[in-house]
Amino acid sequence: MPRSTNLLRIDPERMRTAFDALAQIGATAEGGLNRPTFSPEHLAARKWFAGQIQKAGLEFRTDGAGNHSAFLACGPKDAPSLLLGSHLDSVPNGGRYDGALGVMAAFEVLRTIQAAGLKLKVNLETIDFTDEEGTLVGLLGSAALAGHLEPEWLQNPRGGRAALVEGMKRAGLSDESVLGAARRPESIAGYLELHIEQGKRLERAGVDIGIVSAIIGISSYRLTFLGRADHAGTTTMQDRLDASQGASAFTLAARELVLTDFPDCVVNVGRMDFAPGAFNIVPAHVELWLEFRAPDETSVQRLDSALIIRARAEAERFGLDLKVDFLGRHAPTPMAEATQLAFAAACDALGFTHMPLVSDAGHDGQSLAKICPVGMIFVPSVDGASHAPREFTEWQDCVNGADVLLQAAVRLAG
Amino acid sequence: MPRSTNLLRIDPERMRTAFDALAQIGATAEGGLNRPTFSPEHLAARKWFAGQIQKAGLEFRTDGAGNHSAFLACGPKDAPSLLLGSHLDSVPNGGRYDGALGVMAAFEVLRTIQAAGLKLKVNLETIDFTDEEGTLVGLLGSAALAGHLEPEWLQNPRGGRAALVEGMKRAGLSDESVLGAARRPESIAGYLELHIEQGKRLERAGVDIGIVSAIIGISSYRLTFLGRADHAGTTTMQDRLDASQGASAFTLAARELVLTDFPDCVVNVGRMDFAPGAFNIVPAHVELWLEFRAPDETSVQRLDSALIIRARAEAERFGLDLKVDFLGRHAPTPMAEATQLAFAAACDALGFTHMPLVSDAGHDGQSLAKICPVGMIFVPSVDGASHAPREFTEWQDCVNGADVLLQAAVRLAG
Repeated sequence: MPRSTNLLRIDPERMRTAFDALAQIGATAEGGLNRPTFSPEHLAARKWFAGQIQKAGLEFRTDGAGNHSAFLACGPKDAPSLLLGSHLDSVPNGGRYDGALGVMAAFEVLRTIQAAGLKLKVNLETIDFTDEEGTLVGLLGSAALAGHLEPEWLQNPRGGRAALVEGMKRAGLSDESVLGAARRPESIAGYLELHIEQGKRLERAGVDIGIVSAIIGISSYRLTFLGRADHAGTTTMQDRLDASQGASAFTLAARELVLTDFPDCVVNVGRMDFAPGAFNIVPAHVELWLEFRAPDETSVQRLDSALIIRARAEAERFGLDLKVDFLGRHAPTPMAEATQLAFAAACDALGFTHMPLVSDAGHDGQSLAKICPVGMIFVPSVDGASHAPREFTEWQDCVNGADVLLQAAVRLAG
Repeated sequence: MPRSTNLLRIDPERMRTAFDALAQIGATAEGGLNRPTFSPEHLAARKWFAGQIQKAGLEFRTDGAGNHSAFLACGPKDAPSLLLGSHLDSVPNGGRYDGALGVMAAFEVLRTIQAAGLKLKVNLETIDFTDEEGTLVGLLGSAALAGHLEPEWLQNPRGGRAALVEGMKRAGLSDESVLGAARRPESIAGYLELHIEQGKRLERAGVDIGIVSAIIGISSYRLTFLGRADHAGTTTMQDRLDASQGASAFTLAARELVLTDFPDCVVNVGRMDFAPGAFNIVPAHVELWLEFRAPDETSVQRLDSALIIRARAEAERFGLDLKVDFLGRHAPTPMAEATQLAFAAACDALGFTHMPLVSDAGHDGQSLAKICPVGMIFVPSVDGASHAPREFTEWQDCVNGADVLLQAAVRLAG
């Protein structure tokens, strides 16, 4: 297909300058960055972004959930907004592209449209959502904005209530402000996001752009194996109720279960906390952080049930009790057909190859899909690296993705 | 054997008052206590003990390792001291008897001998050793006093260097002061300790007093399983280098190994620390706290080798690296024959049944055995409970143990 040459394009140098400046905030020695939600580094990144918005002559907005926006009044006064965005928080010791690329590309799209003086049928808003990564709650800002954040999520968050309360305080937020951040669905025209793939499919296929067809479902639990503290010298091996045994057996079994019976799914034990946690005391409690993902609703439910049954069986095998705390789930989410078509048309116009992909990672689009059309594209990740300092995407791929985002936004907003 | 009625006895009421007052310091809601080394509660217990020593008209002494003593000049001016003691620190959320009973009984023995005005061939000293339980180093005070504390133990302590430095600072100590606390071996006539059994052997046998024949050997390691941090959604199960798998497999295998091949030994994985420790990141590192015990030198070496070989094999099975940090060991320690005979004679004179026992727990006697004759007795633990709030010994058994300690001390010092 012949490549159009007279299309509006983003400014690669301007985007690069902003991207590199942002990557300095919370930068780690290994070349990644560390900006967990509401950490000093995360708040510094947001402060920097607010400054950039104002310098660019765009309107800076924030809400009760801490979401930060750049607003461009390119449509009629009371028209809804098409949101373009991602997030500036990172996992602990994560990479430079996850989230940050999407926000910087969306910001660059607004600056390009602003400079071109385009008049569109809707207004545009670049948004940085709060806590996409789930250091505290997961998709916190987008769920709040979409009006379906459950108060229970704030009371029993996966990062712990104390950490959430302290973090919100640092950011000047509260339970009340977060729950009050919902927008009227009719005020939102749609949501588009550019993200790195976080896998190897585009790289292996040699394709420029992945057009997301659906976002995988994610569930998380805190499982506590409950045994008994005893002296680790004088209590015979037979007499122990050792919580480490149940937790370890479950950790091995969960992997085997998914490998054997759920080839489309994944499971992760990201952390265990031992109590009392001493060399010479048999562990009384082990709290295990469990997350699993499945591409469709049936698999979500089958895997959920299989894992919890297995956890109970392993606890019982070692004479332990099991406490099951369900921390929340995000259902598998199909992307809107109109946005997939707009992305495909944009790719075709720009001469980029594209393919449909299921997102194996969760994204804020899951929240927005409940109130508006959502679309998402991926650009290739070198070696599929993600949530790690070695995360890397070629700059030309970043620019390509931003140009597709620009063209799709203009098509959907025009 | 007829029971002698004209022997010197301790004052059960006076000992009870002191024991109960001490048990209030760091008391927990479950009826146990929490006095990890150099915690505010531990330092408060030591301050209380120093006050009791002075009120009793005994001489209070302390040294560069923080050991606290009551000194009774009942022998010639330059005679060596017979030490009687135990420790006031506890494991996290431990019981009221472990250590505290030994110190309070030894203190009561000194008060009884002081009140009786006995003149002996040596002086007597009740001692509370620092960090017997190993919150920071393990047998810290006794190793320092015995002059065989390795500077390396202070640089790479099992509780972490930062916690040790901070703790020493709170207690007014330093590396230099601790390493300078060694006493001349010729200044110490011996060391006797009363302790609860921490097992069920006396209870099951219906015997009053256990006379320790040897203290078991203890080794500890920090094993770090090293994998790679990856996105827990987008990285296939097959592509992961998941440190949790190696750590979990080793934890199960270590137990099986001991159950199958080392029936006289025990092993404990007391804690694991995951990094980065998030729901949605494959664990890159798991640091595992390992301790094992064996009754003789051959078993210590065989088990050590079998465990480390197994850890390497489990790491390899999951594509992980293994970092092995050896944290120290205490060799199996036989008790002195003279002290065992003195305890047996004391039991016989007082009409108590007695039996020889190997101590499956480590004690400060291991340190002292390198420079002087050491002896130790146990009194029954109800249900064998130890290092837990439900730890309990009948008060009459505590009194019996203190009377045996008194009689043995008088025999050895007279």
